[in-house]
Amino acid sequence: MDDTLLMIPGPTIVPKRVLDAMAQPIVNHRGPAFGEILEETTAMMSEVFQTNNPSYLLTGSGTAAMETAVGNTIQKGDKVINVVGGKFGQRFQQITEKFGGESIEITVPWGQAVDPEIVKSVLEEHDDVKALTMIHNESSTAVVQPIKEIGKIMNDYDSLFIVDTVSSLAGDTVEVDNYGIDVCLSGSQKCIAAPPGMSAITFGDDAWNVINKQETPNYYLDMKSHLKYFKKDPSQTPYTPSVSLTFAMNEALSIVLEEGLDNRVKRHHIGAEATRNAAEALGLELFAREGDRSNTLTGIKMPEGITDQQLRGTMRNKYNVDIGGGQDHLKGNVFRIAHMGIIGLPELAITFTCLEMTLKELGFEFERGAGVAALEETYIKYQ
Amino acid sequence: MDDTLLMIPGPTIVPKRVLDAMAQPIVNHRGPAFGEILEETTAMMSEVFQTNNPSYLLTGSGTAAMETAVGNTIQKGDKVINVVGGKFGQRFQQITEKFGGESIEITVPWGQAVDPEIVKSVLEEHDDVKALTMIHNESSTAVVQPIKEIGKIMNDYDSLFIVDTVSSLAGDTVEVDNYGIDVCLSGSQKCIAAPPGMSAITFGDDAWNVINKQETPNYYLDMKSHLKYFKKDPSQTPYTPSVSLTFAMNEALSIVLEEGLDNRVKRHHIGAEATRNAAEALGLELFAREGDRSNTLTGIKMPEGITDQQLRGTMRNKYNVDIGGGQDHLKGNVFRIAHMGIIGLPELAITFTCLEMTLKELGFEFERGAGVAALEETYIKYQ
Repeated sequence: MDDTLLMIPGPTIVPKRVLDAMAQPIVNHRGPAFGEILEETTAMMSEVFQTNNPSYLLTGSGTAAMETAVGNTIQKGDKVINVVGGKFGQRFQQITEKFGGESIEITVPWGQAVDPEIVKSVLEEHDDVKALTMIHNESSTAVVQPIKEIGKIMNDYDSLFIVDTVSSLAGDTVEVDNYGIDVCLSGSQKCIAAPPGMSAITFGDDAWNVINKQETPNYYLDMKSHLKYFKKDPSQTPYTPSVSLTFAMNEALSIVLEEGLDNRVKRHHIGAEATRNAAEALGLELFAREGDRSNTLTGIKMPEGITDQQLRGTMRNKYNVDIGGGQDHLKGNVFRIAHMGIIGLPELAITFTCLEMTLKELGFEFERGAGVAALEETYIKYQ
Repeated sequence: MDDTLLMIPGPTIVPKRVLDAMAQPIVNHRGPAFGEILEETTAMMSEVFQTNNPSYLLTGSGTAAMETAVGNTIQKGDKVINVVGGKFGQRFQQITEKFGGESIEITVPWGQAVDPEIVKSVLEEHDDVKALTMIHNESSTAVVQPIKEIGKIMNDYDSLFIVDTVSSLAGDTVEVDNYGIDVCLSGSQKCIAAPPGMSAITFGDDAWNVINKQETPNYYLDMKSHLKYFKKDPSQTPYTPSVSLTFAMNEALSIVLEEGLDNRVKRHHIGAEATRNAAEALGLELFAREGDRSNTLTGIKMPEGITDQQLRGTMRNKYNVDIGGGQDHLKGNVFRIAHMGIIGLPELAITFTCLEMTLKELGFEFERGAGVAALEETYIKYQ
């Protein structure tokens, strides 16, 4: 129905193998065939999270998993540090406040990562902080946050470390157990390259200790129901799951593990470097601060005098390439190119070729071919 | 991966056309191609609900829609009448209580429908009842509830009428506007015959008036977020939706409307009558009370001396036919055959042929062929 090249930061291109797996006939979600698939899938999920704890698949989008993370741990009056440097950081804060948490915001300028020393000082300043929430890869700003360093700091405090890896897991390094992450969540439709509609979450012992002691006001996303089923039989979910998306996740995670997590992360890093080099070779300016730039998508400042409608509209309507726009106050000022999931040299070649054609057409000056040349050079460097 | 004939009450068999539609490449959920599909799908959804109000697709299972219905309307201390005659009626009550509602339970014996006069008397007895919840088709007991009659009664009261039609919509008559239903929800994986993982909900003005005046404690299922997006642009959802399941729902609802709602409901009624006649011709006893029996699935008492493992195990392992067991205290005492979605004469012929073979093997006495003969006779009657 649509042969547009999908270069937005999720949903991303889904391999044919995954689409085919998804289209298998439906099976009984309480039967042994599905149970086997589910157990295999959640085991692969834990492998990708790099945790020894079980993982749970949720039939719902990434936001459902964010709510699951916060709603099961935060209660009225709990102090929560929310690191906010973009739209998804804000969403974690909104969910925290919806559940009655008292938000201590660490405001980070959009385009920058948080300074771990600031996190440390805020933790020192407040006792009895129940949790800290953080977006590993803030896709609204194309920034990656230093979760490893923050994890080390968090080790000295009792607060739960809640990390959203929706747009980083399987594309950048996430070591849940090594980093001391207590609650980690992700989505299906980014670096894992499955269709949207499913999310995953895992909890450490400290998180379960909190969860088991309290009640969450919601029902569908109450993890105690999941745990109850899981303890009886790990092949069961409390409510009818998305059977087809479980098939898809199973296949997508198999592909991730066939490639190997390290290889896949390295491939994402190369795609990111190539994209940054290509953009800069065209004289474009990157949005995120150097050193804080995401490995799964790149934010680029809109050149002066060119509108979002002109640039992204031409890319989409004339060249069938769909790139991301800016979000909230970055609307019109930034565009975003994803290099997540299976996106590699071929897709970036198409994208930068068409971006060059579009920019020339809009009167932006640069040496024709320079962007693609930079792509080539970056990829050659890693051969 | 599994060629078992799926005769359980959901997820049900999904037509190849729907599986193929689901396997289409992913598109941008904020782009015009998806927007068109979403608007078309929700419009068809409203047509199937028989309402002039908009419908909303939720990326979540039927339970997510049940929580959406209750969580957006019921607040701490609100009086709610819960009609409870099976597992799903209980779930509505649990969700009501989770959201702080004060449940007034109308207990209905499992296997029976509620008497509308009792509903009337309970409404008379209590003022300021905020809402009444009811499962149209209680799949745990294979009973259909008189929502039309209850709707007429509810007309005289201010309470919201909240109806779950997860296992009836598109298989039995549901006229949301005519029946005066204020909140109606359904699922993808039953009579609509799409894969599980998506649900739908619609609200009348009285429901919106309540919703807009209050806050719900949850986030992902907060309808005010959906409404905000919808008002700006009906082709947008607040969070990344399940794109593939939207494709699937679009195709499944197209099939429903090509067949015609009335034809489809009539076909379900014939399947139900044929199943009941076939079961009784074998000397089996139906579980639900006469007159209260579901048109989308049939509950049959387990013959004495035969265990669930023997009957359903043989059906599944020897004949590759998966039928439903009993739920909760009906486990082992009842088995359930679905005739929902695309299930018709061919699937029932296989099922009853294999059921006859299984029952004979287990020593149950009946005239061989009598079940299938009753199926034939019923279908011939309606030719």
